[in-house]
Amino acid sequence: MDNHLLQTAGQLFLDSQRVLLVSHIRPDGDAVGSLLGLGLALQAIGKDTQMILADGVPKSFRHLPGSDQIHKNPEGNFDLVVVLDCSDIQRVGPVLDGYPQPDLNIDHHITNLNFGRINLVDTKAVSTTEILAEHFQVLGLPLTRPVAATLLTGLITDTLGFRTANMTPKALRIAANLMEAGANIYTLYQQALFTRSLQAARYWGSGLATIQLEDRMLWATLTLKDREEANYPGRDDADLINILTTINGVDVALIFIEQKNNKVKVSWRAQPGFDVSEIALQFGGGGHKPAAGAEIEGSIEEVRIKVLAATRDLLNGKIKY
Amino acid sequence: MDNHLLQTAGQLFLDSQRVLLVSHIRPDGDAVGSLLGLGLALQAIGKDTQMILADGVPKSFRHLPGSDQIHKNPEGNFDLVVVLDCSDIQRVGPVLDGYPQPDLNIDHHITNLNFGRINLVDTKAVSTTEILAEHFQVLGLPLTRPVAATLLTGLITDTLGFRTANMTPKALRIAANLMEAGANIYTLYQQALFTRSLQAARYWGSGLATIQLEDRMLWATLTLKDREEANYPGRDDADLINILTTINGVDVALIFIEQKNNKVKVSWRAQPGFDVSEIALQFGGGGHKPAAGAEIEGSIEEVRIKVLAATRDLLNGKIKY
Repeated sequence: MDNHLLQTAGQLFLDSQRVLLVSHIRPDGDAVGSLLGLGLALQAIGKDTQMILADGVPKSFRHLPGSDQIHKNPEGNFDLVVVLDCSDIQRVGPVLDGYPQPDLNIDHHITNLNFGRINLVDTKAVSTTEILAEHFQVLGLPLTRPVAATLLTGLITDTLGFRTANMTPKALRIAANLMEAGANIYTLYQQALFTRSLQAARYWGSGLATIQLEDRMLWATLTLKDREEANYPGRDDADLINILTTINGVDVALIFIEQKNNKVKVSWRAQPGFDVSEIALQFGGGGHKPAAGAEIEGSIEEVRIKVLAATRDLLNGKIKY
Repeated sequence: MDNHLLQTAGQLFLDSQRVLLVSHIRPDGDAVGSLLGLGLALQAIGKDTQMILADGVPKSFRHLPGSDQIHKNPEGNFDLVVVLDCSDIQRVGPVLDGYPQPDLNIDHHITNLNFGRINLVDTKAVSTTEILAEHFQVLGLPLTRPVAATLLTGLITDTLGFRTANMTPKALRIAANLMEAGANIYTLYQQALFTRSLQAARYWGSGLATIQLEDRMLWATLTLKDREEANYPGRDDADLINILTTINGVDVALIFIEQKNNKVKVSWRAQPGFDVSEIALQFGGGGHKPAAGAEIEGSIEEVRIKVLAATRDLLNGKIKY
């Protein structure tokens, strides 16, 4: 990343007194981690900060230092506005309505629109916290122990524990630096990635008991009854799909999740070489090549028959891409 | 590690022509990875090698380069014998019966008995492959791409994906070096840690559907019927216990696995601060503070009542340690 840009950003931090920091709706570990990492570091050099997430802090990240300082709406005036981990400004939700263009846009998404006055965008970074950690010194920020913990959390969650296809040697070395700055990888990993409720685990159980494999297509079904019996509060699959994709010999995994009002949510996950977003699109949904979803009218049996037929066509090479 | 020792070991490699390499019974990723890593590197500098595992290569590591060269019994004479990832010589099984004291003992276990003529033991290393990778250059060995892949596999498996309590910044940096030498972390991680069969996933499902939480004690039950219906071939829990310990609010997790002949296998896992090996011992089993097991006579209902009562006593502090 351009050193001049970094120095300009560092000067902005120095010259500011009231800093507004914002990240995206439905926040993940990198949203919360980058927000807290930068916010706590700015506090450590004497700045007033407001850290904002339109949807608040998810339960699974409330152990992080400073998370109780995150609010849902900004109040008052600021002389610096920083947006973290957002590819476009809409991702922050309504919290910046009425504010001018953000001063700083710090992000790692390849789709970033460079919407800030200054854009620190590195699409090779595995997380926004990796960008912060790499350049903390040039930015004039102190890597304290709480800051290191929040930054390492973003790195762990966005890489699902150092195992995504975009992993780099640099990301591992930065994780090592954050450990040396005091972040406990064992505890943070547990807290960030292993936060299953009893209800979610029971709900998983009912789904796993139903799985079927046909050639290299695997599917599971979660009914409204399963959800009630497990007392699971969500409308989703509780991330069961991530277990399905780790089963041997599977090219495409699907989950059918029964909804109220005669609808079924369908999720697809595929190995490299398949494009499930095409099928999701056929059914009015969307997504990416390896991961897609749709909500489809019909009973669970009807939807399953139609969707499995379309997915079979994909696997049989009838859909080219 | 003492540099003189390493140089002596390097000279042994140089001076030898026929090298026997052995690792332990019931081999894990570090056993297979360290055996192949050193073996392939020695082949690359022109040595003849025999790589031996008394139990052969588990299915989940047969993707590793050179794994088809691993045999169950040594044949012929050798001028150098190397034992890898074994805390004592008995761990290799019967394969070294009749051979003299091993020349080299390379290991990271804290219980290592220094049974070799030369002992390269580093108990701070997270895996035996970490020791090899760290000192490969001093040992005069080439870090080729296949070698890097096998060494990274040991590092990933012994740390369950960089998340055990003994993780170090050094281990992360060595993993980064191995990536740069050509090891694909994404693929190796998937192959080494995500190898669940359809049968195991279904069997998990039936177990997860039964889980119960009482205070901070969680348990699941797997019956013979569950095993049959899932068509699961093992007598064990298919590692379901590792899912149970990631559920929120659990101090002690147990699994009851029904066996033939009126017996029940019980596994305990506990958070730091609890010693489940004490309970296992009461029931004729054994283990470590955080992980223990026993096989107990009785029906699943009888065993469950007795074992849960004893475990409740532990949680209520009636067992001091």
